[in-house]
This record gives sequence, C-alpha cells and structure tokens, in this order.
Amino acid sequence: MNLLLCGEWDDAERDTWAEALRMALSPRDRLLLRRGEVDDALIDAVITANPPPGSLAGLSGLRLIQSLWAGVDRLLLDETVPHELPIARMVDPAMNAAMAETVLWAVLSLHRGFFDCADRQRAGVWQPVLQVLACEVPVLVLGFGQMGRSAASGLARQGYPVSAWSRQPSAHVVPGVRRRHGEAGLKDAIAKACIVVNLLPLTAATRGILGQPLFDRLPEGASIVNLARGAHLLEADLLRALDSGRVHRAVLDVFHTEPLPAGHPFWDHPRITVLPHVAAQTDLRSAAAVALANIDALAQGAPLANLVSRELGY
Amino acid sequence: MNLLLCGEWDDAERDTWAEALRMALSPRDRLLLRRGEVDDALIDAVITANPPPGSLAGLSGLRLIQSLWAGVDRLLLDETVPHELPIARMVDPAMNAAMAETVLWAVLSLHRGFFDCADRQRAGVWQPVLQVLACEVPVLVLGFGQMGRSAASGLARQGYPVSAWSRQPSAHVVPGVRRRHGEAGLKDAIAKACIVVNLLPLTAATRGILGQPLFDRLPEGASIVNLARGAHLLEADLLRALDSGRVHRAVLDVFHTEPLPAGHPFWDHPRITVLPHVAAQTDLRSAAAVALANIDALAQGAPLANLVSRELGY
Repeated sequence: MNLLLCGEWDDAERDTWAEALRMALSPRDRLLLRRGEVDDALIDAVITANPPPGSLAGLSGLRLIQSLWAGVDRLLLDETVPHELPIARMVDPAMNAAMAETVLWAVLSLHRGFFDCADRQRAGVWQPVLQVLACEVPVLVLGFGQMGRSAASGLARQGYPVSAWSRQPSAHVVPGVRRRHGEAGLKDAIAKACIVVNLLPLTAATRGILGQPLFDRLPEGASIVNLARGAHLLEADLLRALDSGRVHRAVLDVFHTEPLPAGHPFWDHPRITVLPHVAAQTDLRSAAAVALANIDALAQGAPLANLVSRELGY
Repeated sequence: MNLLLCGEWDDAERDTWAEALRMALSPRDRLLLRRGEVDDALIDAVITANPPPGSLAGLSGLRLIQSLWAGVDRLLLDETVPHELPIARMVDPAMNAAMAETVLWAVLSLHRGFFDCADRQRAGVWQPVLQVLACEVPVLVLGFGQMGRSAASGLARQGYPVSAWSRQPSAHVVPGVRRRHGEAGLKDAIAKACIVVNLLPLTAATRGILGQPLFDRLPEGASIVNLARGAHLLEADLLRALDSGRVHRAVLDVFHTEPLPAGHPFWDHPRITVLPHVAAQTDLRSAAAVALANIDALAQGAPLANLVSRELGY
C-alpha cells in the first residue's frame, strides 16, 4: 500500500518520524514523504499529525487517516475530509504513561506547595509550607478516556481521593476512583475538588468548560491543571478567578495559540505555570508500531483500532 | 509518669505539640512544658525534637528519650546524654508517606525536565523538553530505612529502574528494587545512576558522602537530591560538579546551616532547587500517637519501639 506521511513539521521532524516508521514498515508498504511521488488516487492511507486544513483534499483512494497524535479536533473540523472516511486516534501506551506522570507531578507540586517553595527561593525567603496528607486533597479528573483513566489510577494509588468525570457514563472501573457523569455529576464533583485536572477531548460540548461557571463552584483556593487543549480554557475567566483568589494556581500545558505569544499575560503571572506542550508527547517508537498495526489491519481487512466517532467528536 | 516536652520551639510551636500530645495522653501521665515544674529526678521520659546540647543534663530519673523527629544525630553527639539511656527515633507513617511524595516529585521533575520548563517560562522561551521513558532513568536511593524503602517502592511502582544502597546488608525486600550494600556496591550503583536520592542517616561514615569522589563516578549530567541532612553534602564539591557539568541539577531540602543564610550561593544558583526543609515534616497527629505508644510500652515494661543503635549511629 502507499502511505503518505503528512504534518506541519520541519524537515528534521519529518525525517525522524519517517525513520521510526520505516524501521517497522512491512515490505508490502511504501512510505511517501510528500504528495506527487505517486498519483493522488493511489494513496491508501495517511499517517499524520494535525495537518493543516485542506492538506488531504483530492486523495480519492484514501481508506484511513491514522493520526500520530491523540487529539484529532483539527481533522474533524477540516471540511475537505470526507465524513465517511475512518480516522484513527493515536493511543500510545508511552504517551498515556507520560500524561499520568505529568498529572502526578502537577498534583504533587500543588498539594505539597513546591511551586510556592520555588517562588520563595527566587525571593530568597526561607519559609516552610504547610504539610497536609494526600488523603486530604480531593482531585477531580475531567475525562475518562485512556489518559484520564491512567492519570486517575496513578493519583488514587498515591493516596488522593479521586473523582473522574465524563459527559457520558462509562463502563470502565478504576480502583479507588469515584465515577461521575453528566451535568449534575460535574456540579457536585467540582464543589469538593481541591485540584481539577482537565484531560477531556475538545468537542463543541467541552470547549470553554474551564470558565467562570466552573470556577465559581470550586472551593476557594482550588487549582486548575489543563493538559488537554487550549480551547477548553477561557483565559480571561481564569485571570479573574486567580485575581479574586477563587483559583489559587493554574498549571497549563496547552494554549489558544501555540507557541504562547510573547507578551501574553500567562508568561509572567506569578501563579500560572506555563509548560510548552510537553505533558505527553507521542513516543516515536511505540507510536510508529501502533500506527503500523492499524495499517496492517487495513491491508488485511481486519477491524481498525481507535476509530474516532464524528458524533462524539473523539 | 512525668513527661517533659523539650525542643527548640517558639511558644506557638510548643503549644501545638502540647495540644496534639494532650489529646492522646493517658490519665496516668502528666505532660510538662518546662523543667522546674517537678523535681528533675521525677521526670521519667523526654519527648523532644533536636534539643540543644545539654538540655537534658541532670534528669537523673530519665528512662527514655522519645524523639519527635526521624533524625537523632544531634542527640547522639550530646555528651550530657548517658550512653545507656534508650533513645527512640520517630517512625511516623505520615512522614514516610510525605518523604516518598517529595522523592517522587523531585525525580519526576528531573526526569521530565519540569525545572527546565520553569527556567524557560521565566525567560519567556517556548521550547519543548525531550521526553524519555521512566524505564530509561535509573534512580539510586541511598539509605534503606523506613523512608528509603517507602521512597524506593514508590519510584519502582512508577516504572523507574531503582537501586537502593545501604552500608550494611538488609533483610528487607522491596519489589522492583535492586539491593546494594558496602563500598563496592556503592561504586557500582553510582556509575549507572541518572538521579541519586539521599535518605541516609547522618553518621561518621556517611558525613560528606555527597562529595567529589561520588560525583566523579556519576554518569555525566546526573542529578542529586539531598533530603537527609545538610552535612551529607560537601557544598563546594557540589558547586564545582555543577560548574563542570558532571552534575546537571541538585534538589536540596537540608543545609549545613538552616535557615540557609542570605547570600549563600545556593539561593541564586540556576541549577539548584532550594526547599526550606519541608521534604517530610512530622505529622503532629500521627507522631503524637506513635510517641505515646512508646511511653505506654515504657509504663508497662513492654519492649520499646524504634530504638537507636549508638554503634550504628541511627
């Protein structure tokens, strides 16, 4: 089959991906690094990361879009992608593990006051922080997909009281994690959360979910960790909630515009931690293997894994 | 029995401890907040935290010194404390859990480059850090007491390859943790460690262990986490090892002089994280219960728990 590798990469990034994929490529398949090497109609599948809208237009023989990223929101908004074309998300075990690590780090940092310690070091002030037990710090994880479940599980194992919320009920059970769903479940869970960690997919229903109505229901001094998508967060609402003390701190890995523009108020805010979209990066080696396993399934007419539902938006 | 509470506290700290102890005190016992309330010879036990040398001199009826802290190095150096007098360390489950949390936070921060991210935020630079897998980051824990075992166990559960070293062989087994001991075991373990976490007791044999000979054996760019005692670290050796690049970063919670003096080069060093001795604080509630359980054992002639060996120094 002809596989087209396609994404907004510089040459070095593209070569790195091409090398990882070629190491695991079947002799049956050919990996193309740009359009035009074969006739557009002969391309069977695209392996891609967040391609610019329109990049896949005209590939009339396409049977699968395999994303190298977990988030496919941009692909779903691309009007040139036929609605019946299967799109598979990346579900990379290494990326799930990395996300669970980042969540644990952010929660430990907030719970134990290590961001405050960093501020005090910069000010040259020796002042211990109060120590509370993990079991006294309820954490709410928004999202209960693969990443939400890994993260919630890691937090529960560490002794935090964990609730996990999703829009729809879920059949998954994670030991030590209290399941919530729907609007009523969200309202109730927010009211008890010291730390809210967002791992939701970005859909019409979740866009802007981290905004004033949610902040207003939090206990005074709770913290927000957004590791999902920048558009989940209403930036002005967060700044107001930080100013009023309703929200104590925010740890943000994703932004409306990335890289976060110079001069953006988040860069210098004393209670915002800015991460440069590193919470969970696709691991080249495991992601290449996962993507090519789906290509094999396509070649053999076997069921495809990790398909996105256009209805749900993830 | 008469119990004397004794430590270098301000009035508020003393009152807080007194309150926590009184909530769990047997009607049999009386808690004294200062000497002179009863005859010195009538004091049965001292409950203390790092008392200044000489504070316990003249207590001729003393049968137990119960520390509220895990470290008793200052008590063991106090020449006015009779050598045959039992000294019990604090072994507080909440403190062990707190230490394991701090170790996990420090290791996650180093492994995932979150200290580098903080530097980049301050500089206004958006630049992702490299993501490596936990299984690619060997961690060496120095010390295999209660805290060393909790910390090593937490790291192994998180997927790090963990070695734990102690001077003497230990009968304890922690799943996923490779045990090392003695000089040869140390040399060998250091050569493979990306991160070294020190949780050793301070003894004549471990004083200055974090010094040039150890740093010289580390792989280039390893990091040091010292959460035990300031005197484990040779400060000038660390600064040289950071300058040469042999050591990439250091996370330090303990110092030769605490509070860390103004103007000390650690405060402003771009690759040293200064914590104000907060890695593991005694939890008043659980520590009061642990201390008083030993007082009960003393009253009943039962075996005392967590006794210190003067020979080993911990």
